[in-house]
Amino acid sequence: MKGGGQVKFLRLFPLLADLKTTRGETLGQDLLAGTITAVLLIPQALAYAILAGLPAQVGLYASIIPPIVYAFFGTSRSLAVGPVAVAAVMVSAALIPYAQGDPDRYLTGALILSALTGGLLLILAILRLGWLTNFISHSVLSGFTTGAAIFIIGTQLGPLSGIAVPRQAEFLEILHTLFANAADLHLLTALFGALSVAGLILARDRLVNLLCRLGLSKTAASVASRTMPLVLVTLATGVAATFGMNAQGLAVVGEIPSGLPAFDLSFLGADGWIALAPSAAMIALVGYVESISVAKALAFRRREKIDPDRELLALGVTNAAGACVGAMPVAGGFARSMVNFDAGARTQSAAIVTAIWVGLGAMFFAGLLQNLPKPVLAAIIVVAVFQLIDLRSVRRTWAYDRGDGLAQAATIAGVLLLGIEGGLLLGVGMSTAFFLYRTSRPHIAVVGRIQGTEHYRNVCRHAVQTWPQLLIVRIDENLYFANTPRVASRLSDLVLEKDDLKAVIVICSGVSYIDASGLEMLQSLHHSLKEMSVGLHLAEVKGPVMDRLKGARFLRELGGAHVHLSTDAAVRSLLR
Amino acid sequence: MKGGGQVKFLRLFPLLADLKTTRGETLGQDLLAGTITAVLLIPQALAYAILAGLPAQVGLYASIIPPIVYAFFGTSRSLAVGPVAVAAVMVSAALIPYAQGDPDRYLTGALILSALTGGLLLILAILRLGWLTNFISHSVLSGFTTGAAIFIIGTQLGPLSGIAVPRQAEFLEILHTLFANAADLHLLTALFGALSVAGLILARDRLVNLLCRLGLSKTAASVASRTMPLVLVTLATGVAATFGMNAQGLAVVGEIPSGLPAFDLSFLGADGWIALAPSAAMIALVGYVESISVAKALAFRRREKIDPDRELLALGVTNAAGACVGAMPVAGGFARSMVNFDAGARTQSAAIVTAIWVGLGAMFFAGLLQNLPKPVLAAIIVVAVFQLIDLRSVRRTWAYDRGDGLAQAATIAGVLLLGIEGGLLLGVGMSTAFFLYRTSRPHIAVVGRIQGTEHYRNVCRHAVQTWPQLLIVRIDENLYFANTPRVASRLSDLVLEKDDLKAVIVICSGVSYIDASGLEMLQSLHHSLKEMSVGLHLAEVKGPVMDRLKGARFLRELGGAHVHLSTDAAVRSLLR
Repeated sequence: MKGGGQVKFLRLFPLLADLKTTRGETLGQDLLAGTITAVLLIPQALAYAILAGLPAQVGLYASIIPPIVYAFFGTSRSLAVGPVAVAAVMVSAALIPYAQGDPDRYLTGALILSALTGGLLLILAILRLGWLTNFISHSVLSGFTTGAAIFIIGTQLGPLSGIAVPRQAEFLEILHTLFANAADLHLLTALFGALSVAGLILARDRLVNLLCRLGLSKTAASVASRTMPLVLVTLATGVAATFGMNAQGLAVVGEIPSGLPAFDLSFLGADGWIALAPSAAMIALVGYVESISVAKALAFRRREKIDPDRELLALGVTNAAGACVGAMPVAGGFARSMVNFDAGARTQSAAIVTAIWVGLGAMFFAGLLQNLPKPVLAAIIVVAVFQLIDLRSVRRTWAYDRGDGLAQAATIAGVLLLGIEGGLLLGVGMSTAFFLYRTSRPHIAVVGRIQGTEHYRNVCRHAVQTWPQLLIVRIDENLYFANTPRVASRLSDLVLEKDDLKAVIVICSGVSYIDASGLEMLQSLHHSLKEMSVGLHLAEVKGPVMDRLKGARFLRELGGAHVHLSTDAAVRSLLR
Repeated sequence: MKGGGQVKFLRLFPLLADLKTTRGETLGQDLLAGTITAVLLIPQALAYAILAGLPAQVGLYASIIPPIVYAFFGTSRSLAVGPVAVAAVMVSAALIPYAQGDPDRYLTGALILSALTGGLLLILAILRLGWLTNFISHSVLSGFTTGAAIFIIGTQLGPLSGIAVPRQAEFLEILHTLFANAADLHLLTALFGALSVAGLILARDRLVNLLCRLGLSKTAASVASRTMPLVLVTLATGVAATFGMNAQGLAVVGEIPSGLPAFDLSFLGADGWIALAPSAAMIALVGYVESISVAKALAFRRREKIDPDRELLALGVTNAAGACVGAMPVAGGFARSMVNFDAGARTQSAAIVTAIWVGLGAMFFAGLLQNLPKPVLAAIIVVAVFQLIDLRSVRRTWAYDRGDGLAQAATIAGVLLLGIEGGLLLGVGMSTAFFLYRTSRPHIAVVGRIQGTEHYRNVCRHAVQTWPQLLIVRIDENLYFANTPRVASRLSDLVLEKDDLKAVIVICSGVSYIDASGLEMLQSLHHSLKEMSVGLHLAEVKGPVMDRLKGARFLRELGGAHVHLSTDAAVRSLLR
């Protein structure tokens, strides 16, 4: 019993199970990986908080306690949890109308969103509704990510150029404002922005090679190049502070209180929980889907397994805990998790190391960042999300499947024209509608025997043997309400085409499910064929379908002898 | 060319084609059937207009021009078009908030609804979107009809008892008002109501037998029993007029202008088209689905064919034309069409005969109906819709399919608690959600060979031969975004269970469609199996699926030799 309890306990906290079997070497790797990730995370945390319209420290707070909580509950060994760009921009969209310009209310709203996000994920975990998230298809998710990335870059063009853009503006409105007020370009701001973007891109694409040529090992060069955002932040803050550039119109982050986040439940008493719930649901959905797909991709590379239901629980607890310590909603970040993984993180101990570094940063260095120029953070955001844009994927998807391609393109357009949430809903709606449309127009093949075999194939595609007294059709879809009228009409057309018909064999190898409407259709087909003295026969009915039919009147009327194991058995018995 | 033009013309007007080949005998039958239907239709037309909250003559007008228009365009030979109960109650629900107590605006609104209903059906016809209506499953339609019938009976309890019930009341509110104000029962009204109900039920259930025993032929007895509603209307009107019962508190229909409907387009200038459009869409949907299912059922009995797309056009033109001559929305009525059919109607000439009778009635007798007691019309409605209630169907559906049964029960409850439109949407939403849920959790069978055959069946259900180095799985569903995560995880579990695995054969006989997410899943399965030195093989891939795969990188990587015509061919080549 005691052993069983321990096993259960370890199953609830995968990290503890991992640590039990971990050797010192692995812990060393985790220490290094956690440190590298922290270097990347600190500037990102500040940037995403600003992107969400929140004080910069909220991003730091979201990078301390939540990752530690996730480390204990999560089943992914390398997922790096913290603020993510897409969730940040969704937080901003939800809070601008909610706060109506009151910064305190804005902050409270962010905590409510964290709490609701966590709560909704926990509800999905408890009700085992994780499968709902499967309705965001690959194509739609890809389109959504691309659209959101373009949208986020749009929102950063204002901070990068110093041109004032209203915060709640939509994408086209932002572009229009920028063009209309191009003369307002603030040179100093644009200079900081342009240099930062260039520096970050060069660091990512060229610095590694350069450092290698200078004699550094590949690993060392890669680590060094990752420090670029932090170097940039430090450098730019120093320059801006030294020359008092804030007075010259350069927007800076402003005072960041030093210290660790405090446990505070006062947001529980605020109003607006119902109003923020739909946005929280979308943030929860998007955050979960992004996390789970990154986690699966990384787990796959090391032959590990992710438990999607456990991830719901883990991310739910993580966000709920985050709300209590002043954190914005969090999720597993794509780029950050990749860095963590590539840096050699073996267990979630790495995340705890990262959190400790961020915590130390918040305690001792946050106060020094008062003069951090906002265009530098904007540049970090732009370069981070730019790599999420994948427009070629639309063409690839379109080439294979018109419906999926259209849904993907519509999702991108929807995000830009209708907003983040509207675009996602449009994509999910379209892809589901296409699926329903397809299943409502099933493929029905008239088949014949391939000479000398027991195999039956489409008469239009293969040279096959047919018989005038037999109509053999294969229905390539479940029989359900949306397609029964069409199937019935096609079958009756086929029956009326044949003059000497004695029997119809319906091959059910493609039918995995027959609903009440489908049953009614079969029954009325049976009745009408009977009046014409034509027999109805079923072949290759699958086990689960047969189980259901066994209780139905239809099968009693049809007679068990009219149900055949194979098409060939049916044909042979009818030709006898 | 000329002949071709004529054929096209006749195809547009099936009635004319029918008349070209019709003999005198058939026309005689149509004359009789049309007359019998008129006798049933006149009281129904008055009753359904009152049910819709409209002046009684609007029901008559809807029974003159619209059926004639339908007669020319419709493909059903026996559908009797005119006012129907469900559409009438939907009209009432839409117009009470629209008119806000103004009777002129109420009437204009009804014409707008007719025009919109017709227009929307025409749009569906032009865009070939008739398949959308297939998403109302048999079960949901049955539940909707039952729920609407119960709801309509509820609305008539006020008129039957003389207790005042607010017109826009919901079902539970009506029942509550009736109980709370039971003391307001108006005895004279209740007497008329009770006697009418009793008379109509007896006429339907007993009168035929009685008349037969009195020596009438079965046909004559049946015809005679059908005159009961008209006899009742005439008798009750006479009694009420003679004794001046209106003054004693008996509600009567009031003055009905004699004469034929006038052509009037003044409703085109009214406002509120947008506001009424959603209700019109629901009326169009319900009217069309009711009409098409009656038409199909009747056509089936005489081996005729209905063209669903043509019916959209026909009912669209019919309603649009109706709006121009003061008619409420119309559809094919269930009971009325059955009577028409049973009375021997062979072509839509019968409908024209009916319309002429109704026209004569409107011209010469409408004025005499001023004293027609409203409880008599309420009784006609109650008895007509009572036979639409089919609660046993819920149990039958539930026994075969939990999902369908639940959707059906929810539709009934929804109609009563959320209203007519809400109930229908709930039912459609639930049945579609159940279908999606099912397809998102596909059945996956591990199969083996039935000894001595080429057939492969589920290892859990049959005694079959298996091989340690082969995993043969059959996926019983299309591979699409909502189920790929589940399929991938099940397949990887199955692969990890086998130690000496050399090859995985995926049988695609149940896969009629692979979307972009499904393709990605297969591709990543192939990659991961390759790393484990396990081959991936596909068998029984259907033609349409193969056509798509041919262009995809996946198939090039997999190699054509890994796609097998049959499972047995795959197994034999791998065991060689």
